[in-house]
Formats: sequence, C-alpha cells, structure tokens
Amino acid sequence: MPEATTESGVYVDPAGEFTRDQRYIATRITRDGRDGYPVEPGRYRLVVSRACPWASRAVIVRRLLGLEDAISMAIAGPTHDKRSWTFDLAPGGRDPVLGYERLQEAFFKRFPGYDRGITVPAMVDETTGEVVTNDYPWITIDMSLEWGAYHRDDAPDLYPEALRPEIDAVNEVVFKDVNNGVYRCGFAGTQEAYDKAYTRLFDRLDWLSDRLADQRYLVGDTITEADVRLFTTLVRFDPVYHGHFKCNRQKLTEMPVLWAYARDLFTTPGFGDTVDFDHIKRHYYEVHRDINPTGIVPLGPDLAGWLTPHDREKLGGRPFGDGTPPGPVRADEVVPPEHTPLR
Amino acid sequence: MPEATTESGVYVDPAGEFTRDQRYIATRITRDGRDGYPVEPGRYRLVVSRACPWASRAVIVRRLLGLEDAISMAIAGPTHDKRSWTFDLAPGGRDPVLGYERLQEAFFKRFPGYDRGITVPAMVDETTGEVVTNDYPWITIDMSLEWGAYHRDDAPDLYPEALRPEIDAVNEVVFKDVNNGVYRCGFAGTQEAYDKAYTRLFDRLDWLSDRLADQRYLVGDTITEADVRLFTTLVRFDPVYHGHFKCNRQKLTEMPVLWAYARDLFTTPGFGDTVDFDHIKRHYYEVHRDINPTGIVPLGPDLAGWLTPHDREKLGGRPFGDGTPPGPVRADEVVPPEHTPLR
Repeated sequence: MPEATTESGVYVDPAGEFTRDQRYIATRITRDGRDGYPVEPGRYRLVVSRACPWASRAVIVRRLLGLEDAISMAIAGPTHDKRSWTFDLAPGGRDPVLGYERLQEAFFKRFPGYDRGITVPAMVDETTGEVVTNDYPWITIDMSLEWGAYHRDDAPDLYPEALRPEIDAVNEVVFKDVNNGVYRCGFAGTQEAYDKAYTRLFDRLDWLSDRLADQRYLVGDTITEADVRLFTTLVRFDPVYHGHFKCNRQKLTEMPVLWAYARDLFTTPGFGDTVDFDHIKRHYYEVHRDINPTGIVPLGPDLAGWLTPHDREKLGGRPFGDGTPPGPVRADEVVPPEHTPLR
Repeated sequence: MPEATTESGVYVDPAGEFTRDQRYIATRITRDGRDGYPVEPGRYRLVVSRACPWASRAVIVRRLLGLEDAISMAIAGPTHDKRSWTFDLAPGGRDPVLGYERLQEAFFKRFPGYDRGITVPAMVDETTGEVVTNDYPWITIDMSLEWGAYHRDDAPDLYPEALRPEIDAVNEVVFKDVNNGVYRCGFAGTQEAYDKAYTRLFDRLDWLSDRLADQRYLVGDTITEADVRLFTTLVRFDPVYHGHFKCNRQKLTEMPVLWAYARDLFTTPGFGDTVDFDHIKRHYYEVHRDINPTGIVPLGPDLAGWLTPHDREKLGGRPFGDGTPPGPVRADEVVPPEHTPLR
C-alpha cells in the first residue's frame, strides 16, 4: 500500500515490513553528458528539504566541495502533503528560479503522470524546468566524481579512489541497518517486523561504535562520503528516531563513541551549520500522522550537549586530508539560529 | 469528550488540555467504619494493575507496611478495552476470589450503570463483591492511618504526623506537574497545551532535582508517602513517558539527581520488587491507540542502569526510620523476572 508520506515513500509489505521504494529516476549528470545532462555550472538546481536525511547528504557534500556557485539550491519547507514537497518558504510560495509551488511540477514536466514518490534531493534542469534525477546515492557521488572541475580550491576528496570499495561496503550495511533501519523500526506494521529492525539497528550501531572507538572517521583517516551518510542519521536520532520511530534502546547521547563522533562532525564546518532541528522535528512529527495522529511536535530534546568537547582529536585523523575546511555559509543559506538553538 | 482509555479516564477540554476525571467513589475504609466499611483483615481485596502508576502506589505501600495478610490483592492484566480492566492473567480469566472477569462487575454490583471510569486501584468488599472505593489518594493514606493495627512489626511510618503538612504540600505540586503532568503532555490536544504541560513538568523536575541534591528523601530523612508517589512516575519515565508522552527534554537517566534518587528507591525492598516493566510498556503502548495507532511496543530502553550504584547513602537518611525493610515478596506476588529483565 504505497503512500507518499515520507521523503521517499512508505511501503509496508504483507509481513509488516517497511520497504523503501527504490525506483528513482536513474538519469545522471556527467562530464560526458551521456544521459543528455552534461555537467554545466549554473544549469542545475538542487532541490532539498533540510528535514530530509537523504537530501541533507547533498547539502553537506555540496558545501564541503564548494559547489554553491556551480549548483544552486532550493529549500523546500519541512512539511508536505501526500503528493509533494512545496516551496512554501519562498516569497509568494514559489521557488524564485523554477517558478514552481511544488516539486511535483518538475517531475510532471518531464514525466507527465509520474506516479512514484516525489522525493528530495532532486536535481532540476533550470533551462527546461524538468527534473533530471532524484537518485540520491548518485547525486552525492557524482558531485565528487563528475563535478571536480567546479570544486573549490583545496576541496577535500570525499570518495578517494583507493578507498571506494571499503566506503561502498560500509555504506551498504549502514544504509540497510541504520539509514533505512530507523524507518524500518518506525513504519513496521507488526511487532515482529519492528523487533527485527530494532535488533538489526542496534547491532549495527554497536558494530559502528566498535569501529569508531579507535578510529576518528569511518574509512581511512579523513572525512568521506561514508561519514556524511552516517551523520545525517545520527543527527536525527534523538530528536526524532528515538521516540517517533521507537529506536529507543539508548539515545545517541547514551552511546559514548557515536555521540562523540557525531559531535566531532557536527562542529566541523559543513556539517552542523547545515542542520535545522526545527525543520527536522516538524517534518517527521507533522507529516507522519499515521504514527503521530495529533501532529504535536515535541519540545525536546535539550540540544545543549552538541557543543560539549568531543575529545576525538586525540585519535588523529586529518578531517579534510590535503584540503581545507569550507568557509562560512553563504548568507542566503544560513539556517535560522532559532531553528537550531544551541548556536 | 470522555473516553475511558487510561487508568483514570481521558478528558480533553476545548482548549486541548487533558483533564483528569477526579470523581472517584469517596467511600473510605476506616477504623470506626463511619462509611459502612470498617477496617477488617481478610475482608477487602485490593485490585491493581502493575502497569498503572496510581495502583502501584498502593502495591508499594501495602508491601512496605506488611499488609499482605490483611488485604488480599488481585492483579489485572496490563491492557484493557474502553470499559474495564480484566482479570485475564488469572486461571480461566476470572479472579479466583471475586469470581469476576472484569473489574467493572464490582462497580456495577454496587452502582448499577456506573458511568465514570472503572479505575485501579480499587478496594472491593469480598463479602458482597461490591467496590468500596477507587479514591486512590486516600487508599494509601488510609493504609497508613487506619490499618495500623495490622501493620507488620517494625513497619515504617510513611505519613508521620509532624510532617503531614509538608508531605501534603509536596504531593500537591508533584501531582499537578509530574504525576498528572506527564499525562497532560501525552494527551494534549493542541501544541499550546502540550508546550505548557512540558514546561511545567520540567520546571518541576528541576525543582525536585534541587530539593533532592542534598537530601536523600523528599520530606524528612525517611521514606514517606511523598517518595512513593514520585517513584511510580519516575520509574515509568524512560520506558513510557519520554517517548510515548513526548516528555523528552531529557531521559530520567540524563537527570543525575533524580536518576540516582530513583535507583536508590528502586533497590530498596518494596519498590523495585513490585515493578513490572513489561506490563508498564504494554499497557501504555497497546491501549492508547489514539497516540500509538499501531500498538507496537518499543523494545527499549535498556534497563541495565537501574542496578548501578546510586551513591545516595552518603546523604544520610534512615530509609525506614525506626522500622525495618519488608521481607521477601510473597511467592504468589513475585513479578516474573523476564518482565523486568535487569534482575
């Protein structure tokens, strides 16, 4: 019974297990333009919601690589109805570049009657108003591999060639058990399906804690795509997944290694400065009326702990490798301070 | 819109605030029998659910005072439908003493057509099968004041005369802001009502933390009725109220003074040995379908921390005053170990 009530659609199979619809638009934007969409600065608009963990990956990677001038960004509001994300934060409720009220319009422009999830992140061709792709795993990888000519000076290498097999392997288990695992807990249709997802999730978090106990980053000694993908789930853990999705063996704050790792990344330029806790909480609690019928958004958790010392520098590591941290956030992309009140 | 979906009925007023129906059967069991029900060992049956915080007060007080032989106890199952608690745990689904399947029958026997909440704790007259009272604040006070002749040797004084004004004053604010405050968070019908209840709850928990920082018990230097009433809410905080009722500024485990205070009581004979975490979680998550439509019960939280050292002995205090701790739990009243897996 498909329902487009999450970032990427909710399916619950007859055994009660949540199954993510993984049919995305597989078109890619590449240097050689083989799918008809060549890399070209100023041509594409990245549509995101700061609420969505999958979109937030792209927000972080775009900023770490310094692609802000090459790829513009549209930020949808935190909530949406069954059909689409909307540009209700923009003046007049329309994205000023695309002219759309709803992301759906870009999908319909290219594929009339498109019946899969209208999801973020999405890349939209500004010249035609047509969606190019919403295939989020490739969007960030292609930012690294295909958009290299437009990276800022001294951008880090988030997907180093020698480490790709290991990054891919980590990403695969983190996706199944953690990134998507929290959804499998929250949208389980039976107690059995929930129990199974919960066990897999916390087993994997224990595995990650062990891995990160003596190692500052997930793969190698620098920040990679693997860290970006884990971070966007961890930062949502206590505000949303712990209560709303019943991922409640411990809070992130009670898992010392992962909590320090998450704080380390949070305070690294390009991570915490993209996080909007207000959008995150409002999205999940207001949109998922099937598991939160009142739509009431919790006032907690207290976020003060995010800025406490994480003490992970002692593990060594070179956050940006031979590169440098990104500079300040562009003025028009700053998260409103009241949305992330620890700052 | 009254609905009997909690221990004591849920009312949400037009402003969206949860209002507890406080109309209970005001009959009291007293030494002088002025309401027609004199104190008499072997005559009354205390009906409880281990899920319910209000009933759990009576379970604890009965045990601390050693009233097990004087007042028998019937334990209802953790879940119930809109109308009544049921004796589904008993052989054949009937309470062996009262012969009832549902607590409702005792209420109807005395008051045909009784239309208020069928709540626990309730005292039932075994000689007639009629409910005597469900007025929970008086049930425990009367166990202290009216049943003195049947207390065990060296029972503690849980309601010492000199401290009654202070105990009553603490109980009043703890009831409004904490015991009932968590329900006001969970059953708020509007964001505004929730925000107000959350603020009052955590302001009061901060006040209690300050009070208990240098003082082992809430009033005086011994365990009193005030500690019993706070304990039954604190022990449910992380398993239920934090997530299910959105009381999520911190977990109890993240409020150091209250967490140590709760562990101190938990490991005191008469407190933790009455706690059934399985019943607690199943009750709230399975019964409140209005806020948890799937009825799925979280597997967390990890309970291991309950037995870690609390270090509160250093504050002094004499837990049982001039009395002694209760002995072992009666064999027929032991909580199944698998229901509280830390033991």
